[in-house]
Amino acid sequence: MWHLKRQSYSPDTQMIEESLFMVGNGYLGIRGAFEEGYAFGDSVRGTYINGLYDRVPMVHAEHAVGFPTIQDKQPRIVDTQICEIYLDGERVLLESGRYADYERTMDYALGQSKRHYRYTTSALKDAWISFTRMASFVSPNLATYVIEIDYDGKIELVSVIDTDIENYVNPNDPRLAQGHAKLMTLTSLGAQGSLAFASMSTKKTGISQAVAVHHEVYSPKSFEMKHTVRVSRVETHVQAKEKIRLVKLCAFTDEIREVDPLEKAKALALQGNYEHLLKEQEEFLARFWKQEGITIVGSEKDQQAIRFMQYQLLQSVGMDSYSNVAAKGLSGEGYEGHYFWDTEIYILPVIMMQYPERAKALLAYRHRILEQAKKRALELGHRKGAAYAWRTISGIECSGYFPAGTAQYHINADIAYAFIQHHLLTGDCEFMVEKGFEVIAETARIWLEIGHFYEGHYRIHAVTGPDEYTAIVNNNYYTNALAKYHLYWSAKLYTELLNHKEAKIQELAKALVESIGLDESEVALMFEASQKMYLPYDEKMGIYLQDDAFLSKPKWPFWDQIEAKPLLLHYHPLTIYRYQVLKQADAVLAHFLVEDYADLESIQKGLDYYEGITTHDSSLSSCVYGMMSARVGDLKKAYDFFEESVELDLENTHGNTKDGLHMANISGTILSVTHGFGGLRVKEQGLQLRPQKPENWSQYSFSVHYLGAQLRIVISEDIALLWEGKDQITLWLYDEQVTLEPNIGTNFKLRGLKDAI
Amino acid sequence: MWHLKRQSYSPDTQMIEESLFMVGNGYLGIRGAFEEGYAFGDSVRGTYINGLYDRVPMVHAEHAVGFPTIQDKQPRIVDTQICEIYLDGERVLLESGRYADYERTMDYALGQSKRHYRYTTSALKDAWISFTRMASFVSPNLATYVIEIDYDGKIELVSVIDTDIENYVNPNDPRLAQGHAKLMTLTSLGAQGSLAFASMSTKKTGISQAVAVHHEVYSPKSFEMKHTVRVSRVETHVQAKEKIRLVKLCAFTDEIREVDPLEKAKALALQGNYEHLLKEQEEFLARFWKQEGITIVGSEKDQQAIRFMQYQLLQSVGMDSYSNVAAKGLSGEGYEGHYFWDTEIYILPVIMMQYPERAKALLAYRHRILEQAKKRALELGHRKGAAYAWRTISGIECSGYFPAGTAQYHINADIAYAFIQHHLLTGDCEFMVEKGFEVIAETARIWLEIGHFYEGHYRIHAVTGPDEYTAIVNNNYYTNALAKYHLYWSAKLYTELLNHKEAKIQELAKALVESIGLDESEVALMFEASQKMYLPYDEKMGIYLQDDAFLSKPKWPFWDQIEAKPLLLHYHPLTIYRYQVLKQADAVLAHFLVEDYADLESIQKGLDYYEGITTHDSSLSSCVYGMMSARVGDLKKAYDFFEESVELDLENTHGNTKDGLHMANISGTILSVTHGFGGLRVKEQGLQLRPQKPENWSQYSFSVHYLGAQLRIVISEDIALLWEGKDQITLWLYDEQVTLEPNIGTNFKLRGLKDAI
Repeated sequence: MWHLKRQSYSPDTQMIEESLFMVGNGYLGIRGAFEEGYAFGDSVRGTYINGLYDRVPMVHAEHAVGFPTIQDKQPRIVDTQICEIYLDGERVLLESGRYADYERTMDYALGQSKRHYRYTTSALKDAWISFTRMASFVSPNLATYVIEIDYDGKIELVSVIDTDIENYVNPNDPRLAQGHAKLMTLTSLGAQGSLAFASMSTKKTGISQAVAVHHEVYSPKSFEMKHTVRVSRVETHVQAKEKIRLVKLCAFTDEIREVDPLEKAKALALQGNYEHLLKEQEEFLARFWKQEGITIVGSEKDQQAIRFMQYQLLQSVGMDSYSNVAAKGLSGEGYEGHYFWDTEIYILPVIMMQYPERAKALLAYRHRILEQAKKRALELGHRKGAAYAWRTISGIECSGYFPAGTAQYHINADIAYAFIQHHLLTGDCEFMVEKGFEVIAETARIWLEIGHFYEGHYRIHAVTGPDEYTAIVNNNYYTNALAKYHLYWSAKLYTELLNHKEAKIQELAKALVESIGLDESEVALMFEASQKMYLPYDEKMGIYLQDDAFLSKPKWPFWDQIEAKPLLLHYHPLTIYRYQVLKQADAVLAHFLVEDYADLESIQKGLDYYEGITTHDSSLSSCVYGMMSARVGDLKKAYDFFEESVELDLENTHGNTKDGLHMANISGTILSVTHGFGGLRVKEQGLQLRPQKPENWSQYSFSVHYLGAQLRIVISEDIALLWEGKDQITLWLYDEQVTLEPNIGTNFKLRGLKDAI
Repeated sequence: MWHLKRQSYSPDTQMIEESLFMVGNGYLGIRGAFEEGYAFGDSVRGTYINGLYDRVPMVHAEHAVGFPTIQDKQPRIVDTQICEIYLDGERVLLESGRYADYERTMDYALGQSKRHYRYTTSALKDAWISFTRMASFVSPNLATYVIEIDYDGKIELVSVIDTDIENYVNPNDPRLAQGHAKLMTLTSLGAQGSLAFASMSTKKTGISQAVAVHHEVYSPKSFEMKHTVRVSRVETHVQAKEKIRLVKLCAFTDEIREVDPLEKAKALALQGNYEHLLKEQEEFLARFWKQEGITIVGSEKDQQAIRFMQYQLLQSVGMDSYSNVAAKGLSGEGYEGHYFWDTEIYILPVIMMQYPERAKALLAYRHRILEQAKKRALELGHRKGAAYAWRTISGIECSGYFPAGTAQYHINADIAYAFIQHHLLTGDCEFMVEKGFEVIAETARIWLEIGHFYEGHYRIHAVTGPDEYTAIVNNNYYTNALAKYHLYWSAKLYTELLNHKEAKIQELAKALVESIGLDESEVALMFEASQKMYLPYDEKMGIYLQDDAFLSKPKWPFWDQIEAKPLLLHYHPLTIYRYQVLKQADAVLAHFLVEDYADLESIQKGLDYYEGITTHDSSLSSCVYGMMSARVGDLKKAYDFFEESVELDLENTHGNTKDGLHMANISGTILSVTHGFGGLRVKEQGLQLRPQKPENWSQYSFSVHYLGAQLRIVISEDIALLWEGKDQITLWLYDEQVTLEPNIGTNFKLRGLKDAI
């Protein structure tokens, strides 16, 4: 099976399905709202352009120095989804008793989302109605809607371009926007020939965005089509009898990427060919699944889920350096379209393995906004360096609550980590010297600003780690461990690039360090700070510590209040901060990312301890606990967590899939296969694998883009490795070095847990 | 000398003088804006009623559970100050070259503020103009303005009641209001006979407030008076020749205290008699200075300053349980008229000594808002108890930045401390059982909610102490020490009241503990928590610690940036939190309040250490450092700090006296004499004195209301004590017990420092 399918409809779940059945391609995202409209229930009828942003004021109850006063918001753009349907003048809307044979699918092979049903009018006449929509992966500006109707009578369609749009707001949920719903202003609206079009502009930032819709009607009998331009909408009325097929080919453009978005959109809509797009889409996906598809044999549910996850990444991951991956991708308005550390820590590891071009684009985005991060560092009172925004679109800090925002300095290390991992996977020194090292070095400087030597160790105070149920703490293990890695690599790359064997790289490196004023003494300090980094550890318990004070707090006393979850929606932050309670993996995540900073026994003990006090209120948690359970050989627990990750959106277990898909969890589910069960790590000494196999899987496989070629890994009763590069490579299987010859499959013994440790 | 005097005028300092020359009486406050208006410069033309409040929305950039969504604001009320002056049709405004012999005084003996000058018109004709104003201490609803002019020509006065008022806002200073300037709506405006009147209503809370102004004109020749009622103002035009004296007798009322404020105001204005008010005022002050006046011989500057301080307390300290003491008193709009812990820790110690009736009113205010504090405790996630708002007027939490607001749980202990000190000074068990104990017990409950036993000690995590340059810390010494005291007294009073020798007290106590559900086991836990309270201490340095992590932070590296003060207006909070730097006394303040929890050596070492890292950016700091310098016998330093406190408003050394007087510092300056040099402490075992004498004072004296009578203390070459009570008392002089017979002066030897230690 190559699809997500629903065979019933309910108004109660329509918002959730709008997220699940979104169509997108990384540039464009359209939520799966019904073309014909709804009889009941709420809807977020959203379409989004990745990287487009408006700005709104940010008001603080008490202002302080360095609090942001404006923030980016991803605007909902013009709505092209509407196509009202009238049968003999009667509006078609799904009310119970009126429809049958309902089915909705998202097809991962064809790259289309389909929906159909039989509809019965009040005169008891039946119609067969189907909808198909698609966002092109090959031509990312284009999306299509097809509406087909069989009905023995008069059929009327009203296809609408609606510019009367506003964003979704909910003042009571900090994860959603509180106000400022209207972000776009209409600048142009019209129709000519088969085209209807509109252009709008973001209110404060004045970025133009346009859409042109080409309407093509197929009907065996005669039909009529006419456009009506109203104040805020263009209506395209189509009338026919018995049978109709309306193809809406929509071109979306924006001024970030185009000089004249409206003209470009019109041209693209006119040039577009639906049949050709279909073909391109299918070919693209055939290639994708063949090259990158993860297979799981033994659990159809898991195989389906992984396809869903891989497909959703294709739909939401940005394709160019103007964009990135929002917390909810392009599937909803939760977190206001902001980009977080999720990209670097959860999403990029998968993108680097499977979508290498997009990986480069995502990293280039961080380089593009480096200037903003440098400006922010000065605002915060640092003397130099770059402090990346905790959440942003355009680069400015958009976090309104600094204890769980700006205080999360670890985002600097997370971004550097991604550049370093990319370097280890690609060996691309040109990219490193052009983009990566500047980011790594400027961000590393901040550790010298906020850390200090004390009693022989380098310590970092007053930061918040990934977990937001502890805030403004001293020596958060995650932060210190990642900073250690970051500082080490900053120093190492400085030397490597300045002494690179290619003269061009060497020269570029020299120019760069001069331009940013980086010298030996600063690099030496970075190295020393890394070497002497304090990693808080409790001797008695044998675990690395969340932070200096963590163990002296009492454990959370309200575990019986299960209805009060997530805690952040039920308790004042101070109450949460006062206890040993975690929202998500923190030290455990550090053990995943930089496992060699801890011995396996501490990792195991830490995992056990922290699991007992973690609520998993964050969707970024389960996958990490799952992968680390696999790491210590607890395959049963690893699989349970994997299933939690699988179901998070597919079963709406966090209750907020309506606001958009949880992209980090989606990517984390894929990581659970490759890095969890597969045990993949990308290390300084090379790739490492520690494959294990869940009992109910007879086989699974994945592949990794590595040094310009692919490494294919199939795990069944044994481990089959196929290296498709030109030269032999060595890698680490469990803890032994193995050498792979090019294009010769080699089998290795699959070990169980206890061997592995 | 019995006055504050200025003999020159400048537009640059007019806002500062508006604060310094305010007239008020604890109910009413009128800033010293010029009746005739200003030619140049800014002004906050404010009049305020203590306890009056409106409410405005509080918006958070990111909302979280328990963040307040509305806040109180003290509205500026209708302006009665305006009296434009025209001489032969030419407006009188102070432009340079136009006036001479300028003098402004605030007379502490007469209770009046006066201003006069000679004015030269463009026709080079001279006028003598004087203004007198007063807010009656005896009839607190009444204030008067008198304008007198000698001029050989036509004199016109336009006396205005102006209702077109709004509060001062400044979005860039967190200590001032950010928005919502219009807080009052006009409800009635008019004139009849000699009266002009207006009533307005707070916008959201709908509290009515009225003023009626009775105009009386004295002129040797004929004069004319007429009222003109305009949209938002009533103008009273008076015309005369050669000589005029206009007396405006204004009555202010409000609906918190009166059923029909407007009718009441009219009646009061008509009944009022200016000459009688003058006499009452003078008599009141004669009594006050005789009974309560602190004398200093040897430094006229210090004597004057202390009179200023005592007088300003008279002007701004609330007189009834509907009101309290705002951070700026009734002299300005800084901190939006909110009441803080300043009242209990800085102001009440003086009020209890010198204004015992007002002390009771201030404490009764806290009892009045206890219900709000109990509600707030539940909002914060506590199971029971009361959590007082960090800043409020009506009782609701109005702090918009919880790390330096709600996290300051110590306000609970501060309030309890004041009730306990009051109890020790008065022995008033009836007041304790009626009001005090309920507050003490409900607030003590919070320590059981937020603290916990760990490794044998009771610890309190995630709080902010008085110092706001450290926030959300663990085991703040101040908080733990005050909580220890608070819990001890809560347990002790429980037993004492339930076993009181008076049956009536016993019964009331029984009824109370039943109604609040307080029992032996909870009280036993309070006692245990107090006994085992963790007081963080560093063995090596021999000091009590700001908090658990304080010493592991680096010291502030930017001391050279002296222009960047106060730090809070130049650095992001995280940058400040990362260093050993304090805004104000914290552990040092705890050593002042509960000195017996530490030995003198630790106190001395702590004082030295903390002084080196304190910026005194808070106006609550210098006086404490001064008193503790005296405590350890460093009289020179104590005197230097005393001078800093003296000059803070009088010389505008913090640069923001324009926003209102710093009431805590004003009271702290008085405490510097009584508790600093005098060494007064109010302890469980009785009063303690450790008098010392600054070199340049030949004598100083003060008195204390104690157990229903007064204890008079005169310190010169020796110590003369006079006890005016009925029975003998024992008290502690230095560390020796002495007994005083009633009404017999006794002399004791004055010791120098080193004896004292």
